[in-house]
Amino acid sequence: MEQAAFKQVQAHIRAALAGGRFAEAVYLLSGLRPADRADLFFRLDQDLQVALIEHFDIPVTAEILEELSDEAARDTAEGMSTERLADVLDQMDPDDAADVLGDLTPAKAALALAEMEDADEVIPLLSHPDETAGGLMTTDYVVLRRRTRAGEAIEFLRQVGPEAETPYYLYVVDRHGRLIGVVGLRDLIMADPQTPVEEFMDPDVVAIATGADQEQAARTMARYDLAILPVVDEGGLLRGVITYDDVIDVLEEEATEDVLNLAAIEAGSISNRPYWSLHIPEVVRSRFVWLLVLFVGQTLTTAVLRRFQTQMESVISLSLFVPLLIGTGGNAGSQTVTTVIRAIALDEVRTRDVLKVLWREGRAGAMLGLLLSFVAYSWVLLTGLSSELALVVAGTVFAITVWANLVGAVVPLLASRLGVDPTVMSAPLISTLVDATGLLIYFTVAILILEQL
Amino acid sequence: MEQAAFKQVQAHIRAALAGGRFAEAVYLLSGLRPADRADLFFRLDQDLQVALIEHFDIPVTAEILEELSDEAARDTAEGMSTERLADVLDQMDPDDAADVLGDLTPAKAALALAEMEDADEVIPLLSHPDETAGGLMTTDYVVLRRRTRAGEAIEFLRQVGPEAETPYYLYVVDRHGRLIGVVGLRDLIMADPQTPVEEFMDPDVVAIATGADQEQAARTMARYDLAILPVVDEGGLLRGVITYDDVIDVLEEEATEDVLNLAAIEAGSISNRPYWSLHIPEVVRSRFVWLLVLFVGQTLTTAVLRRFQTQMESVISLSLFVPLLIGTGGNAGSQTVTTVIRAIALDEVRTRDVLKVLWREGRAGAMLGLLLSFVAYSWVLLTGLSSELALVVAGTVFAITVWANLVGAVVPLLASRLGVDPTVMSAPLISTLVDATGLLIYFTVAILILEQL
Repeated sequence: MEQAAFKQVQAHIRAALAGGRFAEAVYLLSGLRPADRADLFFRLDQDLQVALIEHFDIPVTAEILEELSDEAARDTAEGMSTERLADVLDQMDPDDAADVLGDLTPAKAALALAEMEDADEVIPLLSHPDETAGGLMTTDYVVLRRRTRAGEAIEFLRQVGPEAETPYYLYVVDRHGRLIGVVGLRDLIMADPQTPVEEFMDPDVVAIATGADQEQAARTMARYDLAILPVVDEGGLLRGVITYDDVIDVLEEEATEDVLNLAAIEAGSISNRPYWSLHIPEVVRSRFVWLLVLFVGQTLTTAVLRRFQTQMESVISLSLFVPLLIGTGGNAGSQTVTTVIRAIALDEVRTRDVLKVLWREGRAGAMLGLLLSFVAYSWVLLTGLSSELALVVAGTVFAITVWANLVGAVVPLLASRLGVDPTVMSAPLISTLVDATGLLIYFTVAILILEQL
Repeated sequence: MEQAAFKQVQAHIRAALAGGRFAEAVYLLSGLRPADRADLFFRLDQDLQVALIEHFDIPVTAEILEELSDEAARDTAEGMSTERLADVLDQMDPDDAADVLGDLTPAKAALALAEMEDADEVIPLLSHPDETAGGLMTTDYVVLRRRTRAGEAIEFLRQVGPEAETPYYLYVVDRHGRLIGVVGLRDLIMADPQTPVEEFMDPDVVAIATGADQEQAARTMARYDLAILPVVDEGGLLRGVITYDDVIDVLEEEATEDVLNLAAIEAGSISNRPYWSLHIPEVVRSRFVWLLVLFVGQTLTTAVLRRFQTQMESVISLSLFVPLLIGTGGNAGSQTVTTVIRAIALDEVRTRDVLKVLWREGRAGAMLGLLLSFVAYSWVLLTGLSSELALVVAGTVFAITVWANLVGAVVPLLASRLGVDPTVMSAPLISTLVDATGLLIYFTVAILILEQL
């Protein structure tokens, strides 16, 4: 639907709700695409959401729950009667149903499962942690045996097809249930109906382990351009498949987590939640820890300045350049650390490349430092201060830029080596590391050049 | 292939290349999955790449070109004979072939096109800019007329199917070529062979305009969970389709661009290029502009400190806290600007929400500022300085944190309103904005509280 038309329907729905015409609002909402409907639904007041949800039919309610964020889906599900919830869960894709069940109180989840008809599709999914390939997979796929003939497979698909979430790839297993091949629906209709699938299946199937991290699953699918990725357990038994749409969500979530971590925000528990859904205390909690760590780190600058207090008192102009110099170091360090972290995330740089990375970033830092030190030298002279001071500032700009580039290169690689998520080595953290050491460089250069010190 | 097995093959290939056994290396490489093969190929020295590429058969060469980065693909293609290049381009997916042709010198591209058999599939794609939906689409899709019967459609697919990149969704057009519906291959095999497709097609097709930005295309596909998105021109005529795998690449590229921009790196021309492929001068160019802008911005801090030089001379301890205070402001500002920019990117926050965002971030800033000012007050006292100075530092920490949160909230929204990419309003830029104003706050608070000033 075009943006303009969507806005018009939205206005109609709001008017209907404001006027208490629930039936009209439900009718209009039911006609929208699932994503648009969920979007609109999520922006309503919570009271209104709870009041409305009872009025949709079961399939529409299932679609709404599939699209809502985990938190909103849980709240909505908790508000429903057990009978209705069980019907809705039966209608949902098994992986989404498992996610909702996993977020409910254990008592409510047990009641809903007992009422469900397709509980057997969902129960195997409940035991996998949310962040793993197993937690992302669905059980709604089509399995063939190696001796099944193409014609039989199509007939089988005609019967179960309308239910399967992923009808375009069919997986072939041996008699133990081990994954041995994949067949595209296209290959099936091309093949002679009498040919067994094992003769035209692709035996080189990319698969992932149930316990693998969800980001690894997403990267594997991106790398091999897969729309569906089968998930196997330690014995090679096919346990489920991960679909394209879930992977996009994982990549978005991981990108959000990386971006927030890079800005020194503890993103683990908030990266999959929309901006407006977070309460202020949660926001404060996610930010305060890092602000405090950085504050403590920054107190080192005070200690360094104290150590050089006599030098500052004898040449008071020295203090004028403190923010400029540490700011420049921080900026150069932010650039490098972010570049290196991104290269690590995309698997372009590994820990064993540390010397090559240092050499590369060191050279970039030297060129940038040289360019900036010319600017700094000219500018200090222009402000009417001595050429000696200009030399001190320019020299420090050069040294601090190179130093910041080296620190920004080595710290994320070190973190990665130690098994720490390198995105936690945020730009503010590098700036803080560079600040105190940058001041040491500054006063060392000053003592070397200025005669009065 | 398992990681360990892949490493083993990799070692074999390197050994074969080192020993000059080209035929063996080519044989081993041809057996790898396309993504793995390209990965390995790209890590070789450029001379070796050029020497090797002539030895692969046409389909494998086409797969290598499809997987290589734009730059590497161009270099490789430039090195091939025109006849061979034309054969390879014929074998490639039309969208990838068009990308390679667009990057070649016009003379080489014209020669290759003249030699190609399927030039008519590629030529319509050449006129669309790379960053648009048209630049991303392929012409390799299956079109049906509304009156085509299900059985005829399957028969048609049996004939053209092996060529189409996207055989699982078939698009229905009217006699003018306007897109009017979509049919899944599954629906086709379920339907009675005599039924015309218009009776079971889905007429509510999500489509995008040829000129739309590629990021918008990616977001649309993510929103509606589409594996394929049709592209139409202004008249509603179907022009091509965008496939799932290209969208993942776009999302990765946009995420990289956002992350680099947030760290004050001009990412436009480098965000789609691997870390090692950039030359140092390109790295320096992408970083220097922003370092210079920020340097100029930072010189304001020197001006402010000069203005308050007499106050600093009379209470020299004031200078000790300058890095700590502006550092804290910068960190708080980085957190807020990154949060708001991410919310804008995910379309959770719009420019009209500015007051709501300010109110929210202001409250978070007040709570964070209060917590930090307690820490700051205690810490200054512990270092043995006066309680008056502790009060100045604590008061400034509070004011600067609130101020940084407000600046970090309003600046990206303002940029977005003015049509500037908000990610360019990077964390370092906010830090720089907060630095000079933060110092003004500091000395104002100091003059209010300290009697000697």
